[in-house]
Amino acid sequence: MSRTFYFSGGEVGSFRVVDTLSLRGESLPSVSHLDVTSSAPTTAPTFCLWGVTSNDRYVTTAEKTELVSRQIPLGRPNTTHGAFIPIKKNAEWWALPQDARRRIFEEDSRHIALGMRALPAVSRRLHHCRDLGVDAPFDFLTWFDFEPQDVQVFDDLLGALRASKEWDYVEREVELRVERA
Amino acid sequence: MSRTFYFSGGEVGSFRVVDTLSLRGESLPSVSHLDVTSSAPTTAPTFCLWGVTSNDRYVTTAEKTELVSRQIPLGRPNTTHGAFIPIKKNAEWWALPQDARRRIFEEDSRHIALGMRALPAVSRRLHHCRDLGVDAPFDFLTWFDFEPQDVQVFDDLLGALRASKEWDYVEREVELRVERA
Repeated sequence: MSRTFYFSGGEVGSFRVVDTLSLRGESLPSVSHLDVTSSAPTTAPTFCLWGVTSNDRYVTTAEKTELVSRQIPLGRPNTTHGAFIPIKKNAEWWALPQDARRRIFEEDSRHIALGMRALPAVSRRLHHCRDLGVDAPFDFLTWFDFEPQDVQVFDDLLGALRASKEWDYVEREVELRVERA
Repeated sequence: MSRTFYFSGGEVGSFRVVDTLSLRGESLPSVSHLDVTSSAPTTAPTFCLWGVTSNDRYVTTAEKTELVSRQIPLGRPNTTHGAFIPIKKNAEWWALPQDARRRIFEEDSRHIALGMRALPAVSRRLHHCRDLGVDAPFDFLTWFDFEPQDVQVFDDLLGALRASKEWDYVEREVELRVERA
């Protein structure tokens, strides 16, 4: 089973783009639809970003046990709302040893704890782009879905993460809010 | 500067293959030469494996400080001997949380400490293949060089690593010993 997923922005797709926010650095071309597929698009979209799901980089055994017990996969019947958030971190982040990154990620920024607080409302899949062996414009693509009633839970999660020390290392971030087409 | 490196086995290349050992799983096609380049080969070699250098996955700040102070980049004038070792780990390894992998990697297997003991004699560059977004046959490609007088230091390093708990998770490993052509 392929670990690669494609996010194609254009005039067609399973999701309607309702908002595009440029948080930091260059934005993405404005599009009306987003398609999310596990094989490469056969037509030429306005943009196509891709990444691979991979092993956990920071979670401990205890954290993983709790995450697994609480999280629900993407695509529940009523999760009509979603967000696609590509992020690039700076060179300083990538030069840090593992323990320093973990400390900033969780002990300082509570990234895992904040995500846990949004469970099971907000489902999420993380895709890595940094080691694709090509010049990828982002390091991570995160794809979320949730029910309309949980928009505030999601907004609170984003607000808390963006106020964290970890985000000092983010040099590019774009957010596409979507709804099922 | 590209982080991608190509290891091409065939009838030409900067290194003569003096031995090919199949340690675990399927071997590689037998070749007389290995070429190591930072751009894709323009002719068709017998095999071409590629990977990307990336951020540290396990080393702590203290370990990194010591490594950086002792290691010497590849390509010293007299490091005429080398080895190319592609490795694939099993699904069980990749499903482990970060703390469990770190524990096996260093606290149980002393991977970093063993590598440190071989410094500065053995220079090394690690390339990652698992997140290339294509079906790569290996997870890691490691490229070493050393002077002829340090062959035993290198052999001892390999012997110790292969006897470690970490190697219980290795499902494929091939070793090409090379000398500068």
